[in-house]
Amino acid sequence: VRLYDYAASANCYKVRLLLAQLEIPYEKVSLDIFDGDTLTDAFGRMNPARTTPVLELGPDRHLTESNAILAYLAEGSDLLPEDRFDRAQVLRWLLFEQADVVPTMGGLRFRLVTGRLSAGDPDAERRRAGAEETLGVLDAHLSEREFLAADRYTVADIAVYAYTHVAHEAGVDASPYTAFAAWLARVEGRPRHMNDLEPYPPNASVKAGLSVYG
Amino acid sequence: VRLYDYAASANCYKVRLLLAQLEIPYEKVSLDIFDGDTLTDAFGRMNPARTTPVLELGPDRHLTESNAILAYLAEGSDLLPEDRFDRAQVLRWLLFEQADVVPTMGGLRFRLVTGRLSAGDPDAERRRAGAEETLGVLDAHLSEREFLAADRYTVADIAVYAYTHVAHEAGVDASPYTAFAAWLARVEGRPRHMNDLEPYPPNASVKAGLSVYG
Repeated sequence: VRLYDYAASANCYKVRLLLAQLEIPYEKVSLDIFDGDTLTDAFGRMNPARTTPVLELGPDRHLTESNAILAYLAEGSDLLPEDRFDRAQVLRWLLFEQADVVPTMGGLRFRLVTGRLSAGDPDAERRRAGAEETLGVLDAHLSEREFLAADRYTVADIAVYAYTHVAHEAGVDASPYTAFAAWLARVEGRPRHMNDLEPYPPNASVKAGLSVYG
Repeated sequence: VRLYDYAASANCYKVRLLLAQLEIPYEKVSLDIFDGDTLTDAFGRMNPARTTPVLELGPDRHLTESNAILAYLAEGSDLLPEDRFDRAQVLRWLLFEQADVVPTMGGLRFRLVTGRLSAGDPDAERRRAGAEETLGVLDAHLSEREFLAADRYTVADIAVYAYTHVAHEAGVDASPYTAFAAWLARVEGRPRHMNDLEPYPPNASVKAGLSVYG
């Protein structure tokens, strides 16, 4: 498989982490989203939404949406349960992550460093409050269990870990959330855990055409 | 099964639509989110994120996140493919819907009618632009195929239909997107299609404690 990857994207990092943990060999194609690499016609044919990562499984066989990629790759492994209810709970957290984690902690991290927002702007404040609300939901859930779903470490944990473990880069203070912090440590203690998520380049500027939403 | 439901939520409507199309009998518990029905301790135990819908499968067996509920219910039916790649493509659109459709068309519809935003506010304008970008992605994808994934009607179509078919209620003009419009008609032509999505009550006001994000 081939992964079209951006080093500072936690959506990409989560796929790199899963590939490492499943010991799946892959070819990485490194993109620079700030240099227009996702705005080419060739990239648009692979992913009209122009987001990273994209997983290439063969000619004209591309998969987008980081959490769909996680579920695809984890099929048949311990990281995606077979049981119908357990599998639905994993999916629940994959969806929660895109709906509540990415636009708060992910979107804020991106917008602060690219200068789209400054701390204190109304939208930054809205996202910060949403981040705290989201961490509160995670903290309450994790106060009663070791991992997010199915009583074990799954792709749900990988997905939610990706942006939440860098909440501080979004200016969010995660220290009050102690059950959440203990879960971060459990995730980091899993076999073959690795972290190669890079920071955004300083003063990165966003080219016209890069998604206005998110 | 029992569905905790809010009549004007398209996240709830998509589950009602699937249940009707699969001819699954269920008990509906109607909630009024503006009257605090999702802010009770009992509801919080079912869903700490306090969103609707919630599917109850048994005592202490609750499933949240509308698209996780769709995937759970459709398992084994024609509406969720068995093939690993096709299934991943369905999941891709379920995730896209929560990441790009709900916060734009869904969030804007909710915020305009509840007075959280007025047309022309910067956040309303950002969401409207995001809605148009999202409709553009859908339109381009649907210009080359009949349904979103797996060459057939699936829960991906149900999920994306839910908020996009009421884009006008969010002040979004969907008329330029002709392939999208043709797809709406194909979805509406499916056996047992029904639409009981209600408008939000006029001048509904949001109680403290109802999610600040989304």
